[in-house]
Amino acid sequence: MAQGTLYIISAPSGAGKSSLIQAMLKTQPLYDTQVSISHTTREMRPGEQHGEHYYFVSKQGFEAMIEQDAFLEHAEVFGNYYGTSREAIDQVLATGVDVFLDIDWQGAQQIRQKLPTARSIFVLPPSKEELDRRLRGRGQDSEEVIARRMAQAVAEMSHYAEYDYLIVNDDFDLALSDLKTIIRAERLRMGRQKARHDALISKLLAD
Amino acid sequence: MAQGTLYIISAPSGAGKSSLIQAMLKTQPLYDTQVSISHTTREMRPGEQHGEHYYFVSKQGFEAMIEQDAFLEHAEVFGNYYGTSREAIDQVLATGVDVFLDIDWQGAQQIRQKLPTARSIFVLPPSKEELDRRLRGRGQDSEEVIARRMAQAVAEMSHYAEYDYLIVNDDFDLALSDLKTIIRAERLRMGRQKARHDALISKLLAD
Repeated sequence: MAQGTLYIISAPSGAGKSSLIQAMLKTQPLYDTQVSISHTTREMRPGEQHGEHYYFVSKQGFEAMIEQDAFLEHAEVFGNYYGTSREAIDQVLATGVDVFLDIDWQGAQQIRQKLPTARSIFVLPPSKEELDRRLRGRGQDSEEVIARRMAQAVAEMSHYAEYDYLIVNDDFDLALSDLKTIIRAERLRMGRQKARHDALISKLLAD
Repeated sequence: MAQGTLYIISAPSGAGKSSLIQAMLKTQPLYDTQVSISHTTREMRPGEQHGEHYYFVSKQGFEAMIEQDAFLEHAEVFGNYYGTSREAIDQVLATGVDVFLDIDWQGAQQIRQKLPTARSIFVLPPSKEELDRRLRGRGQDSEEVIARRMAQAVAEMSHYAEYDYLIVNDDFDLALSDLKTIIRAERLRMGRQKARHDALISKLLAD
């Protein structure tokens, strides 16, 4: 069984990353991909399921996992922990499924260090004007809030060159096709193909 | 201008490599690819053009180029030299065009050493039976000749794992689609995309 690939995907808000991942997952039977499910210490919200949206754990439980080096990456946001369990990811990859992890550049750096076989993709918006328009949303926010969002977007984008692939989300369908192309090509790499065609290769090389 | 990529493509006879390359080249406006034109010392045959089928050079000329380390790879076959000029390849790659080089594992090893940015693809036939059938051709050859061809095919295939990608040519259309997918995905790699979207990236990162 060929191991799946872990994909790290990052982008500034407004680049359309979430829509791309959602649209890609709809092609699932073809691409056999899943999104990573994180551990968190925040409260479960109505409609959320343990093991589907998150693995909900206690603060002590999470801190014990940090001590055991159980996370590929973790971060604290507004007093709550969020993390990606190495074991949870490994179990899915072992079944040959590709796993997508939507994460910022800091998480991406942690994962690259712990799992060098992970592939990373950065998504950029098509122009500064379009990014500005998207960050303004429905026009309900102050210029100060929008300026802060833009500064955050620029900070995130300044790490684009650390990634393996770059997708510019200008035409959505083309960007989606780019994403699928990357997944398909990675499956044609020698490591994956060698495991997949193991029996054929043995026969071809036999005298 | 983003640099093109040099692709090395190898396969045993009977794997369908040449048909795949020819079919891929027909999609040319989309994929902007060319095949490499080799230097050779063999006689020009009727219908052949200098600079189109080969660069026809004298034996002394070829040997002078070897001394100047002008070849990415070269070999002697039945008393004639064949080689891939680094300058000829570089000139095409500099225009952003991808170049395909149909070559055996020995040439592939030489090129990997001299041009580490080259990507390599190995093509396998779908089964030993099908390979045998293809090597028999029109059934005009002795068992000894066929056995020699099979031994050569196995020797070539024994180097498959040295390549970046593996395509199994079972269904031709699928194998062709695999080849195009690899080319498209390589164009989405950071190095290529960074050069291509240079102006956009500068604007996005400007304050």
